[in-house]
Amino acid sequence: MSTLHLYDSLTGALRRFEALNAPHVGMYVCGPTVYSDVHLGNTRTFLSFDLLFRYLKHLGYKVRYVRNITDAGHLENDADAGEDKIAKKARLEQLEPMEIVQRYTLGFHAVMQAYNALPPSIEPTATGHIVEQMELIKTLLADGYAYEANGSVYFSIETYLKTHPYGELSGRSIDDLETGTRELEGQTDKRHPLDFALWKKALPEHIMRWPSPWSVGFPGWHLECSAMSTKYLGSEFDIHGGGMDLKFPHHECELAQNKGATGHGGARYWLHANMLTLNGKRMAKSTGNTLDPRDLLAGTSEHLSKAYSPGAVRFFMHQAHYRSVLDFSDSALQAAEKGYHRLLASMQTLRKRPAHGPEQGTWNFGEWDAACTEAMNQDLNSPILIAQLFEATKAIAADQIDPQVLGTSGAKELLGRMEVWMFEVLGLAPEHQANNQQWQKALDSAMSVVLDLRQKARETKNWPASDALRDTLVEGGIVVLDGPEGSSYRLE
Amino acid sequence: MSTLHLYDSLTGALRRFEALNAPHVGMYVCGPTVYSDVHLGNTRTFLSFDLLFRYLKHLGYKVRYVRNITDAGHLENDADAGEDKIAKKARLEQLEPMEIVQRYTLGFHAVMQAYNALPPSIEPTATGHIVEQMELIKTLLADGYAYEANGSVYFSIETYLKTHPYGELSGRSIDDLETGTRELEGQTDKRHPLDFALWKKALPEHIMRWPSPWSVGFPGWHLECSAMSTKYLGSEFDIHGGGMDLKFPHHECELAQNKGATGHGGARYWLHANMLTLNGKRMAKSTGNTLDPRDLLAGTSEHLSKAYSPGAVRFFMHQAHYRSVLDFSDSALQAAEKGYHRLLASMQTLRKRPAHGPEQGTWNFGEWDAACTEAMNQDLNSPILIAQLFEATKAIAADQIDPQVLGTSGAKELLGRMEVWMFEVLGLAPEHQANNQQWQKALDSAMSVVLDLRQKARETKNWPASDALRDTLVEGGIVVLDGPEGSSYRLE
Repeated sequence: MSTLHLYDSLTGALRRFEALNAPHVGMYVCGPTVYSDVHLGNTRTFLSFDLLFRYLKHLGYKVRYVRNITDAGHLENDADAGEDKIAKKARLEQLEPMEIVQRYTLGFHAVMQAYNALPPSIEPTATGHIVEQMELIKTLLADGYAYEANGSVYFSIETYLKTHPYGELSGRSIDDLETGTRELEGQTDKRHPLDFALWKKALPEHIMRWPSPWSVGFPGWHLECSAMSTKYLGSEFDIHGGGMDLKFPHHECELAQNKGATGHGGARYWLHANMLTLNGKRMAKSTGNTLDPRDLLAGTSEHLSKAYSPGAVRFFMHQAHYRSVLDFSDSALQAAEKGYHRLLASMQTLRKRPAHGPEQGTWNFGEWDAACTEAMNQDLNSPILIAQLFEATKAIAADQIDPQVLGTSGAKELLGRMEVWMFEVLGLAPEHQANNQQWQKALDSAMSVVLDLRQKARETKNWPASDALRDTLVEGGIVVLDGPEGSSYRLE
Repeated sequence: MSTLHLYDSLTGALRRFEALNAPHVGMYVCGPTVYSDVHLGNTRTFLSFDLLFRYLKHLGYKVRYVRNITDAGHLENDADAGEDKIAKKARLEQLEPMEIVQRYTLGFHAVMQAYNALPPSIEPTATGHIVEQMELIKTLLADGYAYEANGSVYFSIETYLKTHPYGELSGRSIDDLETGTRELEGQTDKRHPLDFALWKKALPEHIMRWPSPWSVGFPGWHLECSAMSTKYLGSEFDIHGGGMDLKFPHHECELAQNKGATGHGGARYWLHANMLTLNGKRMAKSTGNTLDPRDLLAGTSEHLSKAYSPGAVRFFMHQAHYRSVLDFSDSALQAAEKGYHRLLASMQTLRKRPAHGPEQGTWNFGEWDAACTEAMNQDLNSPILIAQLFEATKAIAADQIDPQVLGTSGAKELLGRMEVWMFEVLGLAPEHQANNQQWQKALDSAMSVVLDLRQKARETKNWPASDALRDTLVEGGIVVLDGPEGSSYRLE
């Protein structure tokens, strides 16, 4: 059987995955900057790495999965200029920055939970690691990779270039990078335009600030991930993940910081999840061509004809490979939903299959299961895995006509493995995850029929029928209340 | 109308509540040490302060509610000795301490959410405020209230006593405190047995550690609350809350730290929630006389005959005053549940009341509503508020016989206010919060009747009846699937 291979952005190659310290795996994924609601692109990225987390666990690895929360240091402009994103939002809403952090961290957790993403093992924050970041700066200063200027500290690309390449992760040459860099206001302390901040002296209006040996200020955005990945996973660990947009400058700077401070780049495999579009165009709030992960579940968007279940949306996402651009559209979601329901219905058929036919069927279950594993081993090729699941539905349909196809044990085995692939690995919901409102609506409609029937039984004084109905409902935890205005019900 | 009065533990008196900077209120509540599942006593404490948070909001205050997460520095022994609780659990489970923190923080949030507690505005962590705690130590050293000894820093009670009383919050005299203090191993650095640690030098085996001007070590447990309440609420703020067991030493030390560093004690009102018992006896894991907040909702305890809804449990808790000891027992929970359901049913009656009778009824609605407010204004006397809600059910019952009692507008007004008191202030669930399993069970039982009926209609070729059934179900979001084994259904 094949083994897991992952596409590593640093080498630009599909590489066989070898854990540094098996069965342990250390994985770091760049989490959200919590200054606004998590958007759908980020949601897809986190679900892609949830798929990886799940698959690694499925393979038997013990994964320490660290996903940070950026709650300070992320300025509006990636080139170390502008206001802190969280502080700006706090100023606009007249709140303390940490109130902004709390609101959007809780919102982010709610979305992740709704989409059935497993929580990471550790969820460290930038503000929670100011000491560690200052220690890292001290190391980089001592190693000569950083310099202080007017209370700020910068990473020196020129010094770094003497012994290391820069731009290797994003595949950019220094010349290209220099051409692309605009000189921005307030950056005059930098010796070179590609230098980036490790510590910034706080301007008087900057409210998120900490004392340091250099100034009262705040850490540079790239620093937290180096500090926290090293603290929780070591200077060399297995996997670093994030959205494609983080390759440059964020991950490039992180890599340079790591090498400068420890000699190691950090992760041995750098993974990047691709972006998404809506109706073929880039999503942007300014043009209204945007969709929210909550909109999808609530159906509250002009781009949607209806609400979709979290399982259907996840199914849709995993029908594309995580490194492909994924286009959202109502019709594509509807098609995915249909396919997802077809798979669920097919599994339901299997659950209700009577024990008939031989023990083992003619269908090659082992080959099918190996193909599922093979798909996931090839850089998490979930679209092929899903295609394999549809192959299984054909066998299930054939078995309905001729029980020789699966056989009794074969059918059970297949069901068990389909559950593993669908629920454990792909993270789809094992049961219908309706919300309270949907349940209430469904139960109200069913109960309108039942209470009608009960009313008729009582009118015709058919007490046995009326009592039987009541007994059935009591078993379901439903209490019928008779009042002057007719009967109603409530759950126990 | 009366105004809010709160019982202040520091003065031992019921005091009129005056916000320092109305309409803003700053409230700090000591949160959990996240080294194990939150226990029922803590749950009650947090729900008591959720009630206060809700009532303050109801009164129109803009509350900044800070509740911390203790993720470092809380040693097994309150007298600064023993292992860090989180590090110990991490050692036993062979995990990184922050993995322990993540697991139990998520578990704590899940319990709070299940019981419908509003999230606080800010949820700061001890490890997230190492810098702020070191700054506070520097201030206390500079002010002469602290001294360094072998890399650790202690708060000096003798120095503090020269200008301040100590023991005022817990009502203990220095003589009593000194008598009660045992000299413990490893405390020989202390000048006085009542001195407490602000910073502890880490022993080689202590894994949670940070560099500081005094040693590589960790902050004392009491320090975080002083540092974080000052950072987010200022040196003087409105309310500090916590469980009764935190009065001494935790809050006493916090108060001393605050006064030493800023001249202010911190909060102007110190509130303490009382403990609970189970079947008349102290809860203790060692004797098995224990109950978990999750057990109550799942019914999984030898002390319970059944599961209770979060609303019923909260109702039970708020039927006791927050400063009274509350005894949990299955029979008391059953009685509370019955009362809670009676209130909900009475509100349902009001919702279905036909528009008849006069506009305004004879019942004195204004007097009743004022009595509800009066109850809550008297130190959050929720038992009296609940008694008033039961008074309203009597009026509702009388109105069913004679619509002169409430009148059409009067009935609507009453329903609106009952909803405010029940759901907004007491935090009970506005709708039945069944879990997926309960819904599924209920819907299965109702649908068994409906599918039977549909089957009969089809057998007798009564197509209009069969179609009508299908239409009703479609409206409820239910899809009927016909297969060779009979019909089944699923939600859309």
